[in-house]
Amino acid sequence: MAEKKLGKQTVNFAQGPYVIGSAAVGGEKEGEGPLKSWFDLILDDDTFGEKTWEKAESKILKETMLLALQKSGKDKKDIDLVLSGDLLNQIMSSSFMARDLHLPFLGLYGACSTMTESLLLGSMLTDGGFAHNIIVGASSHFCTAERQFRMPVEHGNQRPPSAQWTATAAGSMLVSDQMVDLSKIGSVDDKQKIVNPRNIQVDCGTIGKVIDAGVKDANQMGSAMAPAAVDTILNHLEDTGRTIDYYDLVLTGDLGYIGKDIATDLLIDAGLDANAVKERYDDCGTMLYYREEQDVHGGGSGCGCSASVFCGNIINRMRKGELNKVLLVSTGAMLSTLSPFQGESIPGIAHGVVLETC
Amino acid sequence: MAEKKLGKQTVNFAQGPYVIGSAAVGGEKEGEGPLKSWFDLILDDDTFGEKTWEKAESKILKETMLLALQKSGKDKKDIDLVLSGDLLNQIMSSSFMARDLHLPFLGLYGACSTMTESLLLGSMLTDGGFAHNIIVGASSHFCTAERQFRMPVEHGNQRPPSAQWTATAAGSMLVSDQMVDLSKIGSVDDKQKIVNPRNIQVDCGTIGKVIDAGVKDANQMGSAMAPAAVDTILNHLEDTGRTIDYYDLVLTGDLGYIGKDIATDLLIDAGLDANAVKERYDDCGTMLYYREEQDVHGGGSGCGCSASVFCGNIINRMRKGELNKVLLVSTGAMLSTLSPFQGESIPGIAHGVVLETC
Repeated sequence: MAEKKLGKQTVNFAQGPYVIGSAAVGGEKEGEGPLKSWFDLILDDDTFGEKTWEKAESKILKETMLLALQKSGKDKKDIDLVLSGDLLNQIMSSSFMARDLHLPFLGLYGACSTMTESLLLGSMLTDGGFAHNIIVGASSHFCTAERQFRMPVEHGNQRPPSAQWTATAAGSMLVSDQMVDLSKIGSVDDKQKIVNPRNIQVDCGTIGKVIDAGVKDANQMGSAMAPAAVDTILNHLEDTGRTIDYYDLVLTGDLGYIGKDIATDLLIDAGLDANAVKERYDDCGTMLYYREEQDVHGGGSGCGCSASVFCGNIINRMRKGELNKVLLVSTGAMLSTLSPFQGESIPGIAHGVVLETC
Repeated sequence: MAEKKLGKQTVNFAQGPYVIGSAAVGGEKEGEGPLKSWFDLILDDDTFGEKTWEKAESKILKETMLLALQKSGKDKKDIDLVLSGDLLNQIMSSSFMARDLHLPFLGLYGACSTMTESLLLGSMLTDGGFAHNIIVGASSHFCTAERQFRMPVEHGNQRPPSAQWTATAAGSMLVSDQMVDLSKIGSVDDKQKIVNPRNIQVDCGTIGKVIDAGVKDANQMGSAMAPAAVDTILNHLEDTGRTIDYYDLVLTGDLGYIGKDIATDLLIDAGLDANAVKERYDDCGTMLYYREEQDVHGGGSGCGCSASVFCGNIINRMRKGELNKVLLVSTGAMLSTLSPFQGESIPGIAHGVVLETC
C-alpha cells in the first residue's frame, strides 16, 4: 500500500477516490459572467423563491448537492455522509440544508477555503474506507454575506476598489470509492455535451495552516489570503517533490485581481519558474465575472466562488480532457465582524486538492 | 481487515486509534462544581489575562491543547493536524488558536456537538493512515456565548428556568495511531495520581443527522437537542447490534436536566430496558455544576461542557479502570441569532464515539 502521508502536510491516495458527479449553481450576476455556460443552473432571481436570502442560500446549496447526486447516477440512499460549510454565522445554510437532506452530516468552517476542505475530508474518509459515497460542497450568497459582514444591502454603500464581490453560488461534488461508467450516466454530460467523458480521481491533498500576514483591512481580502495560498502551494510542491509544471493548472480560490498578483509575485520570489507560474496559475476570483463590465472591483470571493468554478468549469474541462492535472486551492480569510474591533488581523488559510483524469 | 462501515451511520475501527493524551480546562464557576478535581487547570479569572472574552476563549482552547500534547509525551513536531471548533461566529476561538499553534488545521462547526465531531474525524483520519497524531478539541465561554447569542452580559438579564448555562471550558484529546507506554509518561497521571493507567482506544463512532423536532424556543435547548441524541444512540445500537448494557456509561453532551429527562423517556419509549437506561445514561450538562447552589437553571451547555467533562472526568475515570466502555454523544443545536427571526425552528445534531480501555 502506498504511503498515505507525504511530507508534513500532504495526504496521498493510491487509487481514487473518484469525483463521480458535480454541479454548480450561480446567481443572476454569476450567470452573466464569462463562465455562464458551465453552470448547471442559473437563478432568475437570487431569492430562489424564498422569503429570505439565508433561506435562498440554503436552498441553493441543497439543490446543487441534489444536482451533483443526480448527475452521478447514485441514489440518495447510496450516500453515507454530507460535508459542507458556508460563511454564515453557525453555518446556517449548511445546517438547514442538512436538516432537509436528512443524511449524516459533519459541518465545516474554513471560510472561503471550505470547498477544498470538504473535498479533502471527503476524499480521506472514502479512501480510508469509512464511506462509499460522500457529497461535499460549499455555498455563499452576496446578500447574506454583505449584510452579515459589511453593510445592510439596501444601504448601497460604496465599495473601495480592492473590495471583492461575494459570489451567489454553490458547488458540490460526489466523491466515491468506486469509479462509475460515465457512458451509462446520461445526465453527466447533458449540459456540456461531453463526448467520451474522462473519469476524475483525487490524487492527493495538502492541509493548510492558518497564516497571518498582519493584514487588517477587511477590504483587502486577497492580500490577507495570498500568503496562505502560497504557503500551501509551496508546501504541496515540497511534500510531493513536484514542480509547478506538473500541473496543467494551479487554481486558487478567491484571491481576486490584487491577491492573484501578490500570489504570483510570492511564488516567483520563492524560486518557482516565472513563466511556468504565469502560464499555469490562475484564480477563480478573476474568472467568475467580467472585470470591467460587471463592476466587481477586486474580483469574486465567497465559498461559492471557488466551489462553483471548480465544480462547474474545472470539472467539466477535465471531463472533456482539456485539463488533466489540476491543483485546486480554495482560500479562506479568518475573521468575524468582531475580531477586527478587538485589534485582530485577518489570517488566511488554504487547502489544496489535486484532481487528475484517469 | 474488519469492515469499517457498520450499518448506515456507524464507522468502525479494528484496532485503535488511541487517545494518548487529554486535558480539560475550566473557568471559575466550573472550578467550583462537582467535577473540579478533574480539571487540569481552573482559571482564577475567566478573562485568562486577555483583554476580551473572545481572546480568552481562544487562549483557553490553545492551552488545553498544549496540555493534552504535553500529557501525551509527544512534541508539537509530531502533530499532523488540529481539528476543532467553537460556538463563535466564524469559529473565531479556533481560528486564532490555529494561527498561534501554526499547525495544519481543519475548522469544524457542529455547535455543541463539536467535541465528538472532532474526535470522530480525528479517529477516522488516523485510522485511515492520513495522520499519526491529531489534536482534537472544542471550547466555549459563558461571556462570549451570552453576548453573541443572548444579551449583553452587563445587562444581567433574567433567565427562564429552562435556560442553560454555557460552560467556560475546553477539552482536548490527542488521537494517535500508536499506543503509548503510559508508565513512561510522568505527566499523564500527575493530577489524579492514577496508578497503572489504562490505554484507551476509539472503538467506533456514529455520525449524526440533523433532526428537527420543531422546537422554536432558544431557552429550551435540551428539548431541541434530545431527539437528535436519541436518534444517534438508537442508530448506533442498531448499527452495532449492541444493547445499552454493553456500555458502562452512555453520556450525552449538554441536554441539561430537562433534555436528559426527555432523552430518558424517548429511549425507554423506543423499547430500551428502562432500568438499564436509568443506570447507564447520564448527561454532561447535569454533571458540571451543583444544580441548586450554582444557580445554573437548566444545567450546563456549550461545546466546552461535554468537551471538558469527556476530556477530564471521563478519560481519567477510564484511565483508572472505573469505566471501560463508554459511548460519548455530544449534542448540538443548529441556530444562529438570525434563524429564529426567520421563523426557523432549532434542529439538533449529535455524533457518538465509543471509547474503550485496552
